[in-house]
Amino acid sequence: MKDTFEVPQMMTREDVTAMILSAKRASGMTWEQIAERIGMSPVWTHSACMGMNAMPANKAADLARVMGLPQEATTVLEESPTKIWEQAVPTDPCMYRLYEIVGVYGPTIKALIHEKFGDGIMSAIDFDMRISRVEHPKGDRVRIEMSGKYLGYNSW
Amino acid sequence: MKDTFEVPQMMTREDVTAMILSAKRASGMTWEQIAERIGMSPVWTHSACMGMNAMPANKAADLARVMGLPQEATTVLEESPTKIWEQAVPTDPCMYRLYEIVGVYGPTIKALIHEKFGDGIMSAIDFDMRISRVEHPKGDRVRIEMSGKYLGYNSW
Amino acid sequence: MKDTFEVPQMMTREDVTAMILSAKRASGMTWEQIAERIGMSPVWTHSACMGMNAMPANKAADLARVMGLPQEATTVLEESPTKIWEQAVPTDPCMYRLYEIVGVYGPTIKALIHEKFGDGIMSAIDFDMRISRVEHPKGDRVRIEMSGKYLGYNSW
Amino acid sequence: MKDTFEVPQMMTREDVTAMILSAKRASGMTWEQIAERIGMSPVWTHSACMGMNAMPANKAADLARVMGLPQEATTVLEESPTKIWEQAVPTDPCMYRLYEIVGVYGPTIKALIHEKFGDGIMSAIDFDMRISRVEHPKGDRVRIEMSGKYLGYNSW
Amino acid sequence: MKDTFEVPQMMTREDVTAMILSAKRASGMTWEQIAERIGMSPVWTHSACMGMNAMPANKAADLARVMGLPQEATTVLEESPTKIWEQAVPTDPCMYRLYEIVGVYGPTIKALIHEKFGDGIMSAIDFDMRISRVEHPKGDRVRIEMSGKYLGYNSW
Amino acid sequence: MKDTFEVPQMMTREDVTAMILSAKRASGMTWEQIAERIGMSPVWTHSACMGMNAMPANKAADLARVMGLPQEATTVLEESPTKIWEQAVPTDPCMYRLYEIVGVYGPTIKALIHEKFGDGIMSAIDFDMRISRVEHPKGDRVRIEMSGKYLGYNSW
Amino acid sequence: MKDTFEVPQMMTREDVTAMILSAKRASGMTWEQIAERIGMSPVWTHSACMGMNAMPANKAADLARVMGLPQEATTVLEESPTKIWEQAVPTDPCMYRLYEIVGVYGPTIKALIHEKFGDGIMSAIDFDMRISRVEHPKGDRVRIEMSGKYLGYNSW
Amino acid sequence: MKDTFEVPQMMTREDVTAMILSAKRASGMTWEQIAERIGMSPVWTHSACMGMNAMPANKAADLARVMGLPQEATTVLEESPTKIWEQAVPTDPCMYRLYEIVGVYGPTIKALIHEKFGDGIMSAIDFDMRISRVEHPKGDRVRIEMSGKYLGYNSW
Amino acid sequence: MKDTFEVPQMMTREDVTAMILSAKRASGMTWEQIAERIGMSPVWTHSACMGMNAMPANKAADLARVMGLPQEATTVLEESPTKIWEQAVPTDPCMYRLYEIVGVYGPTIKALIHEKFGDGIMSAIDFDMRISRVEHPKGDRVRIEMSGKYLGYNSW
Amino acid sequence: MKDTFEVPQMMTREDVTAMILSAKRASGMTWEQIAERIGMSPVWTHSACMGMNAMPANKAADLARVMGLPQEATTVLEESPTKIWEQAVPTDPCMYRLYEIVGVYGPTIKALIHEKFGDGIMSAIDFDMRISRVEHPKGDRVRIEMSGKYLGYNSW
Repeated sequence: MKDTFEVPQMMTREDVTAMILSAKRASGMTWEQIAERIGMSPVWTHSACMGMNAMPANKAADLARVMGLPQEATTVLEESPTKIWEQAVPTDPCMYRLYEIVGVYGPTIKALIHEKFGDGIMSAIDFDMRISRVEHPKGDRVRIEMSGKYLGYNSW
Repeated sequence: MKDTFEVPQMMTREDVTAMILSAKRASGMTWEQIAERIGMSPVWTHSACMGMNAMPANKAADLARVMGLPQEATTVLEESPTKIWEQAVPTDPCMYRLYEIVGVYGPTIKALIHEKFGDGIMSAIDFDMRISRVEHPKGDRVRIEMSGKYLGYNSW
Repeated sequence: MKDTFEVPQMMTREDVTAMILSAKRASGMTWEQIAERIGMSPVWTHSACMGMNAMPANKAADLARVMGLPQEATTVLEESPTKIWEQAVPTDPCMYRLYEIVGVYGPTIKALIHEKFGDGIMSAIDFDMRISRVEHPKGDRVRIEMSGKYLGYNSW
Repeated sequence: MKDTFEVPQMMTREDVTAMILSAKRASGMTWEQIAERIGMSPVWTHSACMGMNAMPANKAADLARVMGLPQEATTVLEESPTKIWEQAVPTDPCMYRLYEIVGVYGPTIKALIHEKFGDGIMSAIDFDMRISRVEHPKGDRVRIEMSGKYLGYNSW
Repeated sequence: MKDTFEVPQMMTREDVTAMILSAKRASGMTWEQIAERIGMSPVWTHSACMGMNAMPANKAADLARVMGLPQEATTVLEESPTKIWEQAVPTDPCMYRLYEIVGVYGPTIKALIHEKFGDGIMSAIDFDMRISRVEHPKGDRVRIEMSGKYLGYNSW
Repeated sequence: MKDTFEVPQMMTREDVTAMILSAKRASGMTWEQIAERIGMSPVWTHSACMGMNAMPANKAADLARVMGLPQEATTVLEESPTKIWEQAVPTDPCMYRLYEIVGVYGPTIKALIHEKFGDGIMSAIDFDMRISRVEHPKGDRVRIEMSGKYLGYNSW
Repeated sequence: MKDTFEVPQMMTREDVTAMILSAKRASGMTWEQIAERIGMSPVWTHSACMGMNAMPANKAADLARVMGLPQEATTVLEESPTKIWEQAVPTDPCMYRLYEIVGVYGPTIKALIHEKFGDGIMSAIDFDMRISRVEHPKGDRVRIEMSGKYLGYNSW
Repeated sequence: MKDTFEVPQMMTREDVTAMILSAKRASGMTWEQIAERIGMSPVWTHSACMGMNAMPANKAADLARVMGLPQEATTVLEESPTKIWEQAVPTDPCMYRLYEIVGVYGPTIKALIHEKFGDGIMSAIDFDMRISRVEHPKGDRVRIEMSGKYLGYNSW
Repeated sequence: MKDTFEVPQMMTREDVTAMILSAKRASGMTWEQIAERIGMSPVWTHSACMGMNAMPANKAADLARVMGLPQEATTVLEESPTKIWEQAVPTDPCMYRLYEIVGVYGPTIKALIHEKFGDGIMSAIDFDMRISRVEHPKGDRVRIEMSGKYLGYNSW
Repeated sequence: MKDTFEVPQMMTREDVTAMILSAKRASGMTWEQIAERIGMSPVWTHSACMGMNAMPANKAADLARVMGLPQEATTVLEESPTKIWEQAVPTDPCMYRLYEIVGVYGPTIKALIHEKFGDGIMSAIDFDMRISRVEHPKGDRVRIEMSGKYLGYNSW
């Protein structure tokens, strides 16, 4: 019953991300420029390139053309990713501060959503985000804007 | 050497928070109304009432007057709190979605901050936040705006 | 500056749950009977009584009447609860088996949702559930039916 | 005593899963189509292909024929798998929502099983599940139906 | 809306366990003697007294009579307990050794069950256990005998 | 000081286990048959083959002959293994149920050992175990018998 | 069915430990002196007073006389304790250093035991320990001597 | 800017440990014999060979000569190692028992050090250890002797 | 055998800390002023008042006089504390930043100590620390100076 | 759609660190000497070489020249690193003692910062550190000096 066998290798999201990062370093483009080339926002574009969002077929094709990716990469970019993110609070200071903010202000955000909308949540699925630089005399500021659909709980 | 003794009880932040919540339920005021009465934003007001931010002396006095708090409460409100927040990702759906957002988009926010500003972070100390309701034909949306000072790393 | 003070006690969800459980044991009613009396499903009724769902005002009033709860309890039942559930897999065999099911079949459910709907999720907010007993010659079976709205991811 | 040696490589469940996924991408078949070809349900078929259920010999042979797997793969598919699933709550939103549901409603399901059956559990071994799409004017819904044999505790 | 209220106290499993332990110390009976008085095995009797198994009504009545428990205790003894046991490996040497045994021999037991029965498990619900002392010239030995129904996995 | 070097590879327990499993699949022998061939019990044989027990020299030689292992493998089989087992409760249902049993009945076993023997433990070192199939009209049962030397605590 | 009830309070190990510590502070005795008064070693005496070892009846009686404990305390001191110790490495520097030692030298101790004795362990049950002060010109040293019976693994 | 590059490989502690273990198995020497050949104790010798202690230059040279190690290995043996040891309590029974001992007797050791020396610790840096076999009619015993410098806390 | 009993209450470190904090708030003194009154540094004084360092008898007496503590408090202040500190990284931003610093720069500090001193550590027992405010045109800076005795590892 | 593909390899921070360490061992330079050659402090230089700080372009070029690194390495050295550090307290004694210090003195440092500055923190971003050897008759001491900008919390 013993026979020799070979396990097929499929192109993975990690492979596609490595191709994109390598092409980006070679080209010298920024994420903003890549996003503009495919007509999407920088936040969503970076996230989808990192494998945290699926791409519509036409956007996957645009990205493949801009970054010089092989044909199979578009299939991979269109698949539903399994989103694995840091369950432990990350140690990188830039990311840690975000957790500190939602840790400190989480109950506040919840209380104000309930006050303004009723018993429910802000969706993280029907959601978008923008990041911008705001000039300020005492030092420029980072601005993050999030927007998500309100979803009310069901009673039955 | 053995003598009878009594351990003094000091008013704590938890005590003051309980007084505020009780007065709020009795008065029927919302957090927005309380915030307006002391001339601060609802996010900061709720957070300080929950014991996650220290109050300037005049704001502590204003709050004590609005909510009918005893004198010692203003001292407590002015003290630097020890901010203890959920290290484990919270299970409440409304708060969990916030962690999901910073978990999924944390590396994206970091990459775009570095692209726009250089090597550094958005401060969670010199920081402010606003929450609003945005009307939308397919269902109203929650909007969260954060703004923090950019801090660049030091070389020496 | 030191004055004597008293921390007010507010009726909590735990208090209301204890009142309901005590009244239930005294009355001998089942959860099905209680649910029927307030015109809601047994799953939702039990969950709301345990403090895991907020009640609409009329249902809170109905429950208060059926179980003989004091006036303030209706206010508590209407508030948005902070849903704290077992982050560690629970050890009780009846609850553990549910985690075993979603642990073993979670990737399967995800794959089939993506196949049938596209990139998105089943909502746990716009959601309902029913539990029934199904007779079977080799031993009766427990049937659990869940239904949640499909939510597709946003691109922007 | 020192001699050269070679460690034999055996085909593993991971190897077989990779073969199936590769053949599936090449063929363009869905899980529903594969399931139909071997005469089993989509949930059980996907789960067994992922290595979370053992296959009866005839079904393993059917699958090998449909997906073009080598002979040794059928042996592997028939073996009892060691079911390793996510002990930490998974971060992927589609799977997370399932844990949120059993976390929030676990005590409710337990209470209603005890009310309807007595002291016991729903088996996760003598168990089956179905997933379907339900049309709905406000947005289609995901339906998950589980059924497991009731097992009562022993006294001795 | 504010009224004074009192939270009712219900007799809990912990209360009943404390009553049993106190009566046991006062009476000087062993667990073996108590078990014999109610006509059940010592393992099951101890476990049910500790709140880890529900008692049939007649056994709860027997125990109440033997140990002098109040009427409400029988209701509590008959309820389905929520079985909470040590998720972390316990540090007590006598209990730790049991975990060491199932840790070291767990994969062996699994392999031999699969070899003797097929793909399935030994039930921990339809289950019983006996403990005895075996005389031995080099030092007496503890014997533990477990027996559980074999449950085979379902395919569908 | 920089020179080229080569790190020597030693045959490990994992290597020997892989050799045994491969030879077992090729030969079609069961664990019971292998155990019988070397004159030991199936539990101990499987455990030692998995690297969780050291083999006496003559048994290592017997096993090497039965399974066709190279000479160096006997040296490895005779070495004291470092027993690394699952500290987290395993998720495989067949192994999980064993942890559930020692979790639920651990305090009971401890209490009855103390009642029968005094203050001490059942050794997991001077220990043996047997697994058998017991026919039963309502479904066959798995029987596990453990026996370990009683060790009393020292006072000094 | 509802009746008023009272939960009996039994003297616990924690109660007895508190009595001993209070009597010790009042008397000014050291642990060495207490140990000498009951004719046992200081290590064992402290450990038993802390509730980590059971006392033989005559030693419990001696201790009760020396420290002025009530009658019921001797019963408690003779019971088999449930030994709960720090699973996480303790942070106190004096105790932490002990974990550092067994962490760093654990594999060394194992290797040398196997070299000197064969495949087995040093018992922590048939065990004793002594602590002494050794004068040294560069600073006195702490000496800890442990001795435990060698237990060899069983084959069957 | 893209050029081909090669990452240099440096000899690591793991490499040197593998060389020593391989030479030891080939030579048949025990740790005691190796230690004697380099004029150090067996405990320290094993620990340094495992990479948990740095070697003085002359001892590194001695060991290299005895075990036939290449020149670069002496450099590695002299470097300060990063001591990484098991933070979780290890599951191997021989090492586990050591943790059980310091877990159970840690507070006792601390109390007796404070009684004999004052507020301070036993150093794990200025430290040594010896292991020996002690004959005993009821079974030989393992003896472990530790000695560390007493360090008193500073006040300033 | 059953008698009524009373568990004696001893003054604890937590009690003394509460007395100090209450007296401090009443007096309006700062930690710097208290430290000056007892002739010690602010760091050590605060730490000892929090129960993380033992006080020499004369300093305990000084503190008792300055803060108006009862006699028994001096006994407590002189005892060796069990230092329990946050094993999890604390969430308070002011304390978290310290962990971030030792997390990021820990390997650097280790490398430079080894380069300057040899194989060893900076003692945390024979240790002192000072904190000061340094004026700076771009914003004042916090300065923390630590000093600990170098301890070299022992070979034997 | 299936085509052969190759995943591009980019030079990583780990690669550059390995190049630096290899060149350092070959050259025999210390970190102090390397730091001096590029005109920066030893702490910052080591940290940046380990990949925990980004280098300004001119310093990256200096380092590449001093250590003989390839061109692409300077690009890597200038990128913003993701700072991943030990979330669990490290076990190496030299690093552990640093955590012990911030664990024991963290609340003290917080209290004194608040006393000297107000409600805020010491920045770990606008931060520098120096390490030096201080001669002392009873044994030389390690001195660590940290300095970070004070950041006060925002109210809004």
